[in-house]
Amino acid sequence: MTVTQLGTAEALLTALRRDLPGDALITGAEATAPYAADRSGSRPDGEPLAVVRAANAEHVRTTLRHAHALRVPVVPRGAGTGLSGGASAGTGTVVLDLSRMNRILDLDPNDQIAVVEPGVITAELDRAAGEFGLRYAPDPASAAISTIGGNIATNAGGLRCAKYGVTRDAVLGLDVVLADGTPIRTGRRTVKGVTGYDLTALFTGSEGTLGVITAATVRLRPVPESTATVAAYFDSFAEGAEAVSALTAARLEPSMAELVDGPVLGAVDDAQGTDLRARGGALLLLQCDGRSAATEAELAVRLLRGRATSVETTADPAEADRLLTARRLALPALERLGRVLIEDIAVPRTRLADAVHEINAAAERHGVRIFTFAHAADGNLHPILVLDPDTPGIPGAAWRAAGDIFTAALRLGGTLTGEHGVGTLKRRWLADELGPEQHALQQRIKAAFDPHHILNPGKAL
Amino acid sequence: MTVTQLGTAEALLTALRRDLPGDALITGAEATAPYAADRSGSRPDGEPLAVVRAANAEHVRTTLRHAHALRVPVVPRGAGTGLSGGASAGTGTVVLDLSRMNRILDLDPNDQIAVVEPGVITAELDRAAGEFGLRYAPDPASAAISTIGGNIATNAGGLRCAKYGVTRDAVLGLDVVLADGTPIRTGRRTVKGVTGYDLTALFTGSEGTLGVITAATVRLRPVPESTATVAAYFDSFAEGAEAVSALTAARLEPSMAELVDGPVLGAVDDAQGTDLRARGGALLLLQCDGRSAATEAELAVRLLRGRATSVETTADPAEADRLLTARRLALPALERLGRVLIEDIAVPRTRLADAVHEINAAAERHGVRIFTFAHAADGNLHPILVLDPDTPGIPGAAWRAAGDIFTAALRLGGTLTGEHGVGTLKRRWLADELGPEQHALQQRIKAAFDPHHILNPGKAL
Repeated sequence: MTVTQLGTAEALLTALRRDLPGDALITGAEATAPYAADRSGSRPDGEPLAVVRAANAEHVRTTLRHAHALRVPVVPRGAGTGLSGGASAGTGTVVLDLSRMNRILDLDPNDQIAVVEPGVITAELDRAAGEFGLRYAPDPASAAISTIGGNIATNAGGLRCAKYGVTRDAVLGLDVVLADGTPIRTGRRTVKGVTGYDLTALFTGSEGTLGVITAATVRLRPVPESTATVAAYFDSFAEGAEAVSALTAARLEPSMAELVDGPVLGAVDDAQGTDLRARGGALLLLQCDGRSAATEAELAVRLLRGRATSVETTADPAEADRLLTARRLALPALERLGRVLIEDIAVPRTRLADAVHEINAAAERHGVRIFTFAHAADGNLHPILVLDPDTPGIPGAAWRAAGDIFTAALRLGGTLTGEHGVGTLKRRWLADELGPEQHALQQRIKAAFDPHHILNPGKAL
Repeated sequence: MTVTQLGTAEALLTALRRDLPGDALITGAEATAPYAADRSGSRPDGEPLAVVRAANAEHVRTTLRHAHALRVPVVPRGAGTGLSGGASAGTGTVVLDLSRMNRILDLDPNDQIAVVEPGVITAELDRAAGEFGLRYAPDPASAAISTIGGNIATNAGGLRCAKYGVTRDAVLGLDVVLADGTPIRTGRRTVKGVTGYDLTALFTGSEGTLGVITAATVRLRPVPESTATVAAYFDSFAEGAEAVSALTAARLEPSMAELVDGPVLGAVDDAQGTDLRARGGALLLLQCDGRSAATEAELAVRLLRGRATSVETTADPAEADRLLTARRLALPALERLGRVLIEDIAVPRTRLADAVHEINAAAERHGVRIFTFAHAADGNLHPILVLDPDTPGIPGAAWRAAGDIFTAALRLGGTLTGEHGVGTLKRRWLADELGPEQHALQQRIKAAFDPHHILNPGKAL
C-alpha cells in the first residue's frame, strides 16, 4: 500500500471502530485471512484490511457510507462457497460478511412467500418452508452450506431448474444498500408487478457489484405430492444425452435429469469399491414429481428401455437415495484424485453430446484430466478439471483447456457460466460472450450504481 | 413546433427518405394520426411527425441513428393494444412501427425455443408451437391481437402466470437496437446463464425506454396433457377470494383462477340475457392442467363445495368454453355501458378481498362506476372504470378514484400495475411505489442507455 492508501485505510478503520460495535469489526492480517478466498481455488494478492461482520442493515449502511466516502473497495460475502472467485478479497479491501444476518423475518404460508436476511442458509429456508408443505424451489448443490444472499448474487441454479426455474424466478423483491449507503427496496410481495425497471432481476446475478442485499422476499411453492426416481446406464455419454432429448421430445418435464460420464463413475468406483463403470459409460438419474410422478416415470422408463443398457426405478425415498449416490459422491471422489476446478458451461440441451465431445478434446489437447457431469434437462455441464495438488494456483494448461471449453460453449450457442457466475476466473472471456457494445453498456450500468467502483471491483464485469 | 424543431424535423425526414425504402415511411398528419394512440383511452397532444414501418432490424438501426443524432423522440409500437398510454405518440415524435417484422425466425421443438421478430402476434407463436405439442406459456388476454414485442415491453402477464410465470420468465434472450442505433444481443438460447448483468430482464417491462427489440428468443413448454375446468358461484367476492386462499392452502396450483364480481355478472346478463347474477355475487373459474388435472379438479371441487353456492366441473373443452363465457364476455359487456378504463393493480393474494373492498369504497366516494375481475391466484385485479362516452378524456373523478385504488394497492403490499405497465397514465404514482432513491437510480439507469432521452420519453419512468 502507498502512504495515501495507508492514510485512507487508517481513516476508514477509525470511522468503523467508532460507528460499529466492537464484535462487528475484525482487523489484522491473521484474523482477516480466512475471509480472503472462496472455494474457487484462486487466492487474492494478500489479506483484507478489515472484515465487518454485519449484524443488521444499519451495519451495512455504515460500512458502505464510510467506504464510499474514502473510496475503499468492499467485498460482500455470504458463506464463501462460490466457485468463481466472486468473494475473493485482496489487499486493501473491506470484507462485508453477511453470514450473521441469518434470520427468517417472515414466512407466510398463505401468500407463499418468505422474507429472509441474506445470511440464511438456503437449506434452512427450505426446511422452514417444509413445515408448511412448501419449499424454496431453487436447489443449488451447495444448498446445505451456501446462503440465500450468495445464491441471489450469482443467480444460482441447481438440479431442478428446467422445471422450476433458477434463483431469479424465485426472487420477488430485495432490500438493497447502494454503494453510498442509501437503502432501497425493489420489487414487491406479489407474483406480478411491472412498475419501473426490474431492478430485482438486475441485482440477481450481479455478484455484489451493484449493491449489498440486506433482505430478500422470495416465492415458495408447494412440495410435490410424490417423487419417482429412475436410474439408467448407457454405453456412452452421447447416448445418454440423446435419451434426454427423446424424453424432452415426448414432452416429459422431469424435475431432475443428471447425466454423469464414465470417468466420473470410475472415480466413484475407486473411492467406494462399487462397480458402476462396468454397468455403462454414462449414468442418467431422473426424477419426476407431482401428482403424476409415477405415471411420468413409467413413460420415461418405457422410452429409455430401448436406449439404455439397464433401467431401474423407484418411488421409495431410501431406494432413490441409493440410486442418487453416484451423483452425490462424484465430487468427493474427484477430490481424492487432486485439486478440483469446477467449470460451469451451458449449451442448448440438444448440444450436450457435442459439448462433452469438445470437453474431452480440450482435455486431450492440453493434457488435463477432465471429468464431466451435467444437469442435462437445461444443458448445464460441469467439467471438473482435476489438478496436481502439489502445484499451487491454476497451471497454464488448465487455463488453456478451460478457455477452449468456453469458446466451444459459445460456438454451440451457449454460455461460459450457467449458474456459478463470472467472478474473477472467467472475466477474460466475458467480452467474447457479451460483445464489445453490450460490455460497454454493462459498464455504464455499473457506473450508474457505483460511480467510484467500490463494490466488489474486478469481479463479474 | 418552434423554428428549430421544424428544421430538425425536416432534416430527419430528409435523412429517413434517403435511407429507407419508400413504403417504410409515412408522413403527414392524416396518415400518421392512426399511430398516435393505444387502447388506453388517452390521446396525445397531436399527431406524430412520421411513422417508420420497419421491415427489418436495419430499418430500426437507421431510424434510431438519425433520430439520435438529431435528438428526435422515437416511440416504438407493436399492435397498439397497450392500456397505459405506453405507445402514445404526440407532436414531433417518430413512431417506430414494428408490426411488419412478424416472422417466426426459428422454432426448435427439441430445444423448446423459438426466435421471433417483435411483430409476431402472440397467439400466432402459440399456434406455431402447438404443431409440435408445445406452447408459449404467457397468455395475456390480448394474445390474439397483441405482439410479442409489446408483451415483452410491458412484461405482460395473463391468466396462467401463477403456475407458469410472466413474460419475463419465458424470454431467454433479445436482439435490441440501442438509442444510438447500436445493435446488441442479450441472453442466450439456454435456460440457464449468468454471464454479465441480466439485461434481458431489464429490457423486459421497460416499455420501449431502453432500446428497441428486433428479435426475441423465447422458451416454449409442453402443452399440458389435459385440462379440467371448474366454475363456482359465491355469495360475495370476499367469499370467492377466501375460497382461492383455501385452494392455495391445500397446495393446489391451478393454472387459472379467474374471479368475477357480481356487478360484472349483471352486466353480462344485461348483454346476453343470461341469469348469472341470480346464481351468486361472484363467480370463480378455475382450471387445473397436466396429467393429474382431473384429480386436482376433484380436490378443488371438494374444497369449494362447503363454500360455494354451486359448483360445476368438466373436462370437455366445449363445456369448459361455456363455463368460461362469462369471463370472456365481461369486457364487451362493460364496453356496452360506456367507455372503459382498465386498471391493473396486484396485491398479495390473501389481500384480494380487502382490495375489492377498497375499490368499491373508491367507486362510491368519487361517484364512478367500477367493475372488477381478478386473476385471483396471483392477486392481480382489474378494476374497470366505466366512463360517460360523451365526455372526452379522463374526468377528474376517475383520476381520483384510480388514485385511491393505487394508494390502497401500495398500502396492502401490492403494486400499481401488475401486468399493463406504467405508460403515461400511472406516472404520477410511480415514485410513491419506488421511493425517491430508487426512482433516482432508475433515472440514472435510463441515462446509461439513452443519454439524450429520445426513446419513448415521458413513459414508464
